[in-house]
Amino acid sequence: MRRLWHNDGLVAGKLALSADDRGLTLGDGVFETLAVTDGVALWRFEHIERMRAAAQLLGIRFPESRVEDALDALTSRLQGHHVLRLTLTRGDGARGLAGDTRKPTLIGTLQPFDLKLRFRPATVVISSVRRNLDSPASRLKTTSYVDNILAAREAQAKGVDEALMLNSASRVACCSIGNVFLVREDILVTPSLAEGILPGVMRASVIQLAKAAGIAVRERQVRPRELTDADAMFVTNSLRFLRPVTTCDGKRFLPRSKVIDQLVRGLLNMEQQQLILD
Amino acid sequence: MRRLWHNDGLVAGKLALSADDRGLTLGDGVFETLAVTDGVALWRFEHIERMRAAAQLLGIRFPESRVEDALDALTSRLQGHHVLRLTLTRGDGARGLAGDTRKPTLIGTLQPFDLKLRFRPATVVISSVRRNLDSPASRLKTTSYVDNILAAREAQAKGVDEALMLNSASRVACCSIGNVFLVREDILVTPSLAEGILPGVMRASVIQLAKAAGIAVRERQVRPRELTDADAMFVTNSLRFLRPVTTCDGKRFLPRSKVIDQLVRGLLNMEQQQLILD
Repeated sequence: MRRLWHNDGLVAGKLALSADDRGLTLGDGVFETLAVTDGVALWRFEHIERMRAAAQLLGIRFPESRVEDALDALTSRLQGHHVLRLTLTRGDGARGLAGDTRKPTLIGTLQPFDLKLRFRPATVVISSVRRNLDSPASRLKTTSYVDNILAAREAQAKGVDEALMLNSASRVACCSIGNVFLVREDILVTPSLAEGILPGVMRASVIQLAKAAGIAVRERQVRPRELTDADAMFVTNSLRFLRPVTTCDGKRFLPRSKVIDQLVRGLLNMEQQQLILD
Repeated sequence: MRRLWHNDGLVAGKLALSADDRGLTLGDGVFETLAVTDGVALWRFEHIERMRAAAQLLGIRFPESRVEDALDALTSRLQGHHVLRLTLTRGDGARGLAGDTRKPTLIGTLQPFDLKLRFRPATVVISSVRRNLDSPASRLKTTSYVDNILAAREAQAKGVDEALMLNSASRVACCSIGNVFLVREDILVTPSLAEGILPGVMRASVIQLAKAAGIAVRERQVRPRELTDADAMFVTNSLRFLRPVTTCDGKRFLPRSKVIDQLVRGLLNMEQQQLILD
């Protein structure tokens, strides 16, 4: 039986959910997706802290100990590779858009993960759907994900793996499921956190690894035309770690380079360290 | 026992929902909120058509007969005033943001509605959260509603009833729960449908009533500074019909005027006609 967490413990089968749960009715919640290797939820602390910060900004009480309990119960004695998803909604009971609730809803699910997806090269197209610079939600992993869905469907309709989203100021923001980096003359360039992007856990690790290896990192505004001059491009997220981009809107990139190989090794080392320390 | 529809029939208590339902995990759905008077779902046809169009744009199959069945079952032999909410999600099963499902999830709920809320005057403040002109979702009633929630919470924190949202081009768009109209020299001015707003059912009725009464209506781009020159302002939605605005960012308006009184009578007539024709 698949493991499933609902509020205070493991449950079987389906959720017994209020039809008024604001996660379901209004996308009023936040989520995190963690890679789990042999029962270890990778970058666990970083994901919990990001969820806490997002919940706080939305005014959703963060149920600290329930989150830790859910992670422990879902990962206990697990072998192989999995995806663990935590969803925290405002819960049920509030009338009106600004209404509050007595207790948030916490849901945790587990799915097997196919390791072949990790590091797999991606084709990318620039999406017509843009990140909204004029909403704090563009910097949070909320369950109101429809813009990203529209961008991903657009890419799929064009036979491409990933959608690159610009922001309302026409600058590069992120992909529909990850942060984006350009490599040029061994310097890493990535949109800064003010550009309407999620503060990616893997993004932070890549920046940390690069700096430790003496690779310069520029977090700044990125114009779409800079894609043309880049030597390499990649997308990061917590499940696939780092996806080299092979084409973006017609521009071709090599899937491997010295910098990318170095970062891939670094991320695998970070995973190993977390497995050893656990 | 409260009436609750789930997929193919009425159910009691809580929903038995898949934890992977994309409405819950990604805000991947659409909804409609209908006023019900003595068992008649008002503007029923218009709400169904709007939901159908929104579902189509998102690529969610629209379950025509299930929607009609849900409306019939929920409103049958109902007395007094209620809110009927229909939620249609993409359902469960798809992996990946662009994934599809075999069957969408349909949920219908019913709540009593306090008639005193109808036509009640509102105080308004301009929100820092803006409507995203660069996403089709800003023109659809999706369950990814977090921008509106953030705007409504901001208004509430300022002790004001409603948030007026501008769009990414800094023009007037709509309120967090309704369309907005300005009255100036007996002409109605309202943002056009291209401005990142929902095609409101009550908005369309107000425009229809105004035209029939010889009141000129301008659907166009509206600059925030036009608020200063307006004689009156009001917000429309399907539950509250028409809310006269008494203050917007400090500017004061009279809650009643010849035009507003005329529109209020017109909307009440439209309700009566629907009750008679049913």
